[in-house]
Amino acid sequence: DYTVDWDVSAAEKGGHDYFMLKEIAEQPQAVADTLLGRLTEAGDIVLDEVRLTDQDLRDVDKVFIVACGTSYHAGMVAKYAIEHWTRLPCEVELASEFRYRDPVLDRSTLIIAISQSGETMDTLMAIRHAKEQKARVLAICNANGSTIPRESDAVLYTHAGPEIAVASTKAFLTQLAACYLVGLHLAHVRGIKYADEVAAVVAQLQAMPGKVEQVLETMEPVRELARQIADSRSVLFIGRHVGFPVALEGALKLKELAYMHAEGFAAGELKHGPIALIDKGTPVVCVVPSPAGRGVMHDKVVSNIQEVRARGARTIVIAEEGDVAVEPYADHLIRVPRTPTVLAPLVTVVPLQVLACEIAAARGNDVDQPRNLAKSVTVE
Amino acid sequence: DYTVDWDVSAAEKGGHDYFMLKEIAEQPQAVADTLLGRLTEAGDIVLDEVRLTDQDLRDVDKVFIVACGTSYHAGMVAKYAIEHWTRLPCEVELASEFRYRDPVLDRSTLIIAISQSGETMDTLMAIRHAKEQKARVLAICNANGSTIPRESDAVLYTHAGPEIAVASTKAFLTQLAACYLVGLHLAHVRGIKYADEVAAVVAQLQAMPGKVEQVLETMEPVRELARQIADSRSVLFIGRHVGFPVALEGALKLKELAYMHAEGFAAGELKHGPIALIDKGTPVVCVVPSPAGRGVMHDKVVSNIQEVRARGARTIVIAEEGDVAVEPYADHLIRVPRTPTVLAPLVTVVPLQVLACEIAAARGNDVDQPRNLAKSVTVE
Repeated sequence: DYTVDWDVSAAEKGGHDYFMLKEIAEQPQAVADTLLGRLTEAGDIVLDEVRLTDQDLRDVDKVFIVACGTSYHAGMVAKYAIEHWTRLPCEVELASEFRYRDPVLDRSTLIIAISQSGETMDTLMAIRHAKEQKARVLAICNANGSTIPRESDAVLYTHAGPEIAVASTKAFLTQLAACYLVGLHLAHVRGIKYADEVAAVVAQLQAMPGKVEQVLETMEPVRELARQIADSRSVLFIGRHVGFPVALEGALKLKELAYMHAEGFAAGELKHGPIALIDKGTPVVCVVPSPAGRGVMHDKVVSNIQEVRARGARTIVIAEEGDVAVEPYADHLIRVPRTPTVLAPLVTVVPLQVLACEIAAARGNDVDQPRNLAKSVTVE
Repeated sequence: DYTVDWDVSAAEKGGHDYFMLKEIAEQPQAVADTLLGRLTEAGDIVLDEVRLTDQDLRDVDKVFIVACGTSYHAGMVAKYAIEHWTRLPCEVELASEFRYRDPVLDRSTLIIAISQSGETMDTLMAIRHAKEQKARVLAICNANGSTIPRESDAVLYTHAGPEIAVASTKAFLTQLAACYLVGLHLAHVRGIKYADEVAAVVAQLQAMPGKVEQVLETMEPVRELARQIADSRSVLFIGRHVGFPVALEGALKLKELAYMHAEGFAAGELKHGPIALIDKGTPVVCVVPSPAGRGVMHDKVVSNIQEVRARGARTIVIAEEGDVAVEPYADHLIRVPRTPTVLAPLVTVVPLQVLACEIAAARGNDVDQPRNLAKSVTVE
């Protein structure tokens, strides 16, 4: 009987040791599925359900993104994309805080609610609060027909397939892809981006699954590194711009799975306090923006890497292929393919997922079922 | 010679072991100084320098608060106060991130820049960026005539006196007081609050130094507790609403001084990941809002305390006098006087400052000069 169970379980995991590793490996396909059939010949982005007119979206003068946990980090990335592409002011807020803050809302406010399960109670309560004040709600969810999509004015499903591991991986990547699509949709409907411009970004997005696959093929040194640092007291993560939420997400994965002190910081904040934490050998994961994006931002991150290294940190640097400026300061260098600045989180977060998974396994933790956590949080 | 130096040093510290303890003790006077002479008979709030017309302030349709480190936490509290009192949308952003994000700004945008030294390079660069886009800048600083005030359109000096310890204490409390004054000023100039309403809140503010004094008189059990938990691997801090930035500030103090894993969370986020960190005996500091404010928020925090305790946490609860609901779940109960909901951070943060200072001392660290840190950060 045990043998049969084991076989079934191994089959379910597709030959991987953990569901989490299986789901990490499924990310290229999951992102491709999220993007599938989203662009019409007219350059329109296709959502799954729309109970809003284009005029409603043109009337929007403020966007709030509400989410919790990993979905909140997807929302932080979305803020950069939406503001950059639409020039609409966009605020991201923890769903559990949003309700109690008396946010200024009206019928020109668009709420983007992000939840894998579509049942996250904090997020559900936040959108109900917003709807009472006549705001419009667009949901980004994975589970079809769940409560949040049913109560929303428009829905984009991520089509990631079922996610079994408690720590979210493929759901996160597909949420990012969905957020980019929503940003493009807003930009197109509001007349800010021409159809060919929308199509150009969609083409860049469609190249991302291949780049995620490339990252996955080079993860063996990351696994080895994970085993080396599994006994560290703490691991810090730094990033700027869209690399900041990636740093937060990398730290959250490590907290969830390895129960280690792991904290993400905006790289510019280190010297305003947290740099005191850095001791000889403290691993610091540095998410480096593309040097092709905004040069000054790239240079600032390189300076930050030098600063933490000068204080004894063991630097683990995630940088684009061809970025030679980081080489002198990287104790470990993890390369990712070149990507457009705003889309980079789709590749830079992947090594951090693998790192967390392997560190947790090395510490003997249950990777798929970390202590104290539930897959979807249906209580407030 | 050494003897003389020691005497001088002891005298400078006013009988305290550290400048930080002296500055914690000076907080009631510092807050009183910030508030001194700020209210005219007509109910106007008096700033120190104003190169803006009242009409300019009436034209404001969006507020951004930019700051770093501890000042950023003051800004987070200010957001709640300003939105609550004025219904102006208000966003808080790390100065180092603000510049690189292409924020949507124009001459109707008010930037509130908070910096103790008035020389914080990240904040200075942020206001220069904002001014290029015609935004108005109001500075809250401590050091008279420093660069940020000189480049701003209006200034409110905190009059906290010199702060020697690297970890900010009295500067933070006076920044909070200054933020409340700015919120009241905006509400009054824009006609949202009547003069008598402004005067009523100012009277509540003027009662705060006495309440801070009361907290300081009851800190001996906190010192004892600090010695007990000084060897913990990590300390977590949770709060909601204005208690959330207080939790972040308590954690930052502990990072800066004790070099410990200390992290603050919005209490509602715990179950979305970080609760995995809680092990048997992990100290969790819980900042409880007044039950007299929003009852449902108070109840939620009490539930959060129960949740972390059920997972083995050692709960350290900061709660108002008379709040009996927390008693069954508090391993250590630290009482603070009753205060209006929005003003509570002025008292709830004080025990966290004392806790961090005493833990750092118990660990043998240099309280006034923590490793790797400078008092004011004049590089980016």
